[in-house]
Amino acid sequence: MPHFIVLGHDAPTTADFSLDSLTAGRVDLLARSVNAALLRSHGVRDDTVVSLVLQDEATVRFDGREIGGLNPDERSTGGVIRKALQRLDGRGALPDGVTVKTHGLEPVLEEKPLVYQLHADGEPITETSPDRDASFVLSDHRPFTEQDQELLDSYGDGKISVGPVSLHTDHTIAAVHNFLDTAGYTEY
Amino acid sequence: MPHFIVLGHDAPTTADFSLDSLTAGRVDLLARSVNAALLRSHGVRDDTVVSLVLQDEATVRFDGREIGGLNPDERSTGGVIRKALQRLDGRGALPDGVTVKTHGLEPVLEEKPLVYQLHADGEPITETSPDRDASFVLSDHRPFTEQDQELLDSYGDGKISVGPVSLHTDHTIAAVHNFLDTAGYTEY
Repeated sequence: MPHFIVLGHDAPTTADFSLDSLTAGRVDLLARSVNAALLRSHGVRDDTVVSLVLQDEATVRFDGREIGGLNPDERSTGGVIRKALQRLDGRGALPDGVTVKTHGLEPVLEEKPLVYQLHADGEPITETSPDRDASFVLSDHRPFTEQDQELLDSYGDGKISVGPVSLHTDHTIAAVHNFLDTAGYTEY
Repeated sequence: MPHFIVLGHDAPTTADFSLDSLTAGRVDLLARSVNAALLRSHGVRDDTVVSLVLQDEATVRFDGREIGGLNPDERSTGGVIRKALQRLDGRGALPDGVTVKTHGLEPVLEEKPLVYQLHADGEPITETSPDRDASFVLSDHRPFTEQDQELLDSYGDGKISVGPVSLHTDHTIAAVHNFLDTAGYTEY
């Protein structure tokens, strides 16, 4: 089961952000990443998990096996991220399939034996053919920090790239899914 | 040069919609489609055009060769779509690279000799290897109407699919770009 892990370096870690300005902290990018990881046309990818690591302080997880009522638009998913941060303060409840923890990247990396970094300079995904049951770690609009990189190198199984054009996080997730969806197929 | 054509069957054709509720008329979906067609990481795909056909009444075009200041978030691109519809009423101005016309799909299809439909039941893109210099027509959350289908069949060069999983419009655009980006490459 693929697990997409997205590092939000500027992401909010408290719930005091507005759904009218999601670009602050790049919640827009995180919301689109959840959409790309979990939604297909008129349905959910119920074999996929996505974790948003917010400034290495909090981690919000969306589990496709349990999620209900996820919408594709940024405002709606931004609202769920805000609810998760409210939950950290003991307020409110979360939708099914969404959890939040007060930890950063390392415990998330420990969960699966295979950890790939998505990186513009990585090996072509068509050559590496990563296992489906792996963690795929992506950064937001910023490159991985030195600290991220050290951790990823110690847990990681290498850098992979989806192509020669450096893409947005959500489009990279879409391309990884598309690779995993089509690997080995000649007819759909 | 790829030209993505997205049919917005429920899209607004006047500017009286709110940026706080972009899911009405699925402006959120249209905005994400523009993002997927024209933006790469920290830059623009300056060899790509995307046209949004709004209820077969108006067409808003974003030309990557001329566009400036396009942001990836839905609210921002939704605002540009609203400006385009205001422009139809003779109000305001449009950003560079954005134009609006009061016509539907047919004149857009006439522009390029090759027209592919993106369709869940199409031939695998890996088998059809479509020409880069083509129009790629996609529907929104609804299937093509009978009228769309007749027009597409008369102008079209066939149905292609990006994989066995039916995807959202924007992720399909990302997958087509990824195919065109990587076709023929074994190293990136």
